[in-house]
Amino acid sequence: MSELFFTPGPSALYFTAEEHIKTAIKKGVCSTSHRGQQFKDIYKECQQNLKKVMAIPEDYHVLITSSANEAWERIIENCVEKESYHVSMGAFSQRFAKIATLLGRDAHELIVEDGTVPDFDAIDVPKSVELITICLNESACGTAFPLETINAIREKYPDKLLAIDGVSGVPVIPIDFKNIDTLYFSVQKAFGLPAGLGIWIVNNRCLEKAKKMAAAGKIIGSYHRLPDMVEKAQVYQTAETPNILGIYTLAKVASDMIEKGILPIRREIDYKSAILNQVIEAHPQLHQFVKNENHRSKTVKVIKTDFDSSLIIDFLKQKKIHIGTGYGAYKKEQVRIANFPTHSKEQTEMLVDLIDAFRV
Amino acid sequence: MSELFFTPGPSALYFTAEEHIKTAIKKGVCSTSHRGQQFKDIYKECQQNLKKVMAIPEDYHVLITSSANEAWERIIENCVEKESYHVSMGAFSQRFAKIATLLGRDAHELIVEDGTVPDFDAIDVPKSVELITICLNESACGTAFPLETINAIREKYPDKLLAIDGVSGVPVIPIDFKNIDTLYFSVQKAFGLPAGLGIWIVNNRCLEKAKKMAAAGKIIGSYHRLPDMVEKAQVYQTAETPNILGIYTLAKVASDMIEKGILPIRREIDYKSAILNQVIEAHPQLHQFVKNENHRSKTVKVIKTDFDSSLIIDFLKQKKIHIGTGYGAYKKEQVRIANFPTHSKEQTEMLVDLIDAFRV
Repeated sequence: MSELFFTPGPSALYFTAEEHIKTAIKKGVCSTSHRGQQFKDIYKECQQNLKKVMAIPEDYHVLITSSANEAWERIIENCVEKESYHVSMGAFSQRFAKIATLLGRDAHELIVEDGTVPDFDAIDVPKSVELITICLNESACGTAFPLETINAIREKYPDKLLAIDGVSGVPVIPIDFKNIDTLYFSVQKAFGLPAGLGIWIVNNRCLEKAKKMAAAGKIIGSYHRLPDMVEKAQVYQTAETPNILGIYTLAKVASDMIEKGILPIRREIDYKSAILNQVIEAHPQLHQFVKNENHRSKTVKVIKTDFDSSLIIDFLKQKKIHIGTGYGAYKKEQVRIANFPTHSKEQTEMLVDLIDAFRV
Repeated sequence: MSELFFTPGPSALYFTAEEHIKTAIKKGVCSTSHRGQQFKDIYKECQQNLKKVMAIPEDYHVLITSSANEAWERIIENCVEKESYHVSMGAFSQRFAKIATLLGRDAHELIVEDGTVPDFDAIDVPKSVELITICLNESACGTAFPLETINAIREKYPDKLLAIDGVSGVPVIPIDFKNIDTLYFSVQKAFGLPAGLGIWIVNNRCLEKAKKMAAAGKIIGSYHRLPDMVEKAQVYQTAETPNILGIYTLAKVASDMIEKGILPIRREIDYKSAILNQVIEAHPQLHQFVKNENHRSKTVKVIKTDFDSSLIIDFLKQKKIHIGTGYGAYKKEQVRIANFPTHSKEQTEMLVDLIDAFRV
């Protein structure tokens, strides 16, 4: 048996990714000019397949960045003149606020206790704020932000831009794009691709904001100014020579997901999530870190261990199975397990059996 | 015969790259955490091998970006408070000045005629300028900036930072790092890797400048602020999840180049450059675009055609050989041919024979 990666990201490659990479190399995809028709066809296919698998409306733009980190920076540079508001549920969502501060913006931050999600009533956004940011799935703590709260925020603050970190959530969580303005993710989590590529989806409200800021003399970046990125994306081009191999592989993996069907993929995620929850709850030495089951991520399980978590990590490693450590300060007292589309039911059942049998 | 890519970038993969990519996937490199020891070892190996193959001094820092475009942005953000000076010899070197302007800096620009290189005397840098930028090898026009002029600029302006675009020049051109402060390149040219990775080499003068600007309250970026990048690189880490597969492959290709020896690689480049020059000069319908042979790039040949250049491009394509079009406005009247370490003597001889026999 080859090694199995249930790490929360980078994670296992999507089960078809390796073949697509090999085919790409054979077809000369890595040597093709990013100004030529072959690349345009690849980027077009990537845009179209992502729109289909994620139900992205036609008038949203699918842009290429190098990482979710870059998307944080570009969103602040292009969509926030002065003030942003960040719902922070852990290390990853907090970084967005930090980036806004480093870029000289006034970043309001609602920080909730790790492992919890704020009530809708706690989200009180000042009138002067231009952009609200939410993390769909906080990979550090295993919390999932409820979709109905996103919709309620949209209703309460229709004039503010709403940015969603979709990193370990999409395409599994069925986000409704018409209630948000921008969403970004990197591909090494639920899409199961090699790291080094980010996707940034924006609507025309974001674009108009960036144009307005630029017209007022505000600096909105250089080679990745949003208006230029959109203009280039419309003819399937990028400013820089991008990660062509990554874009090709993403187009193909998204196509495979369309063929399998996003509903069967989501049903499998639900089943695997359920058996993972069962084994955690039945185990005398393991506990769900997220108490409220409605706020628990389906795709990243964060488990509190009554023992040094390296014991179970090492035990599984001997069986060639890799799971993640706890994040940051939780390293020794938690483990994290990914439940992504590439993880098969059989692999997950095997993992569950091993966890079930494990005792310190 | 499989397709041969003499395009100037992306170009042919280094002849060992495909195997390294396959090995990486087998070894789980794409699924490993960028916070774990396996990634640290990969980044360390990459730093060390690049230092060796490019003769980078120990106290220079080898940083990861996503592209040369990103390096342009980061250099301006971190090393220029107000004024920069750009020697522009074509489309690529001009973009650096454009990026400085977009970032609100006062960008002085010396623009020379396409296909030429400025005399040392023409380079007259105002006292207030903080950074001078030079393109080692202008891939649009096929011009090479003389190393002795770089050294003379350093001597004349010792207090200014000197930034070198090494994109299609390194590791072939033996740049002397102690006479420059920063150099960047993307890997899809002379290193022969898939696009989507940039390397940014900086010394402590750049670092001090960035720290001074930050201390004075200037915004120097967010997740890729130079002081943070250096701090992370010293423990073989990056802020974002980087292109791990690319870093691994670069480490291995650099190792292969060390094993082959950089001097034999340079001798081969010289030989291939000579036979390409010969065939261009002997051909009645082809002409060197760069008249002064001392200013002619060894690694990117730009050839003026007396006919629509697509004729020779299509002729070679039928033989499964790809060469580049002219850049921008020169598309129809020029062709560009790369001479990178991965192009073997035999492949280049075959190309030369086909060009020699071609007539309109």
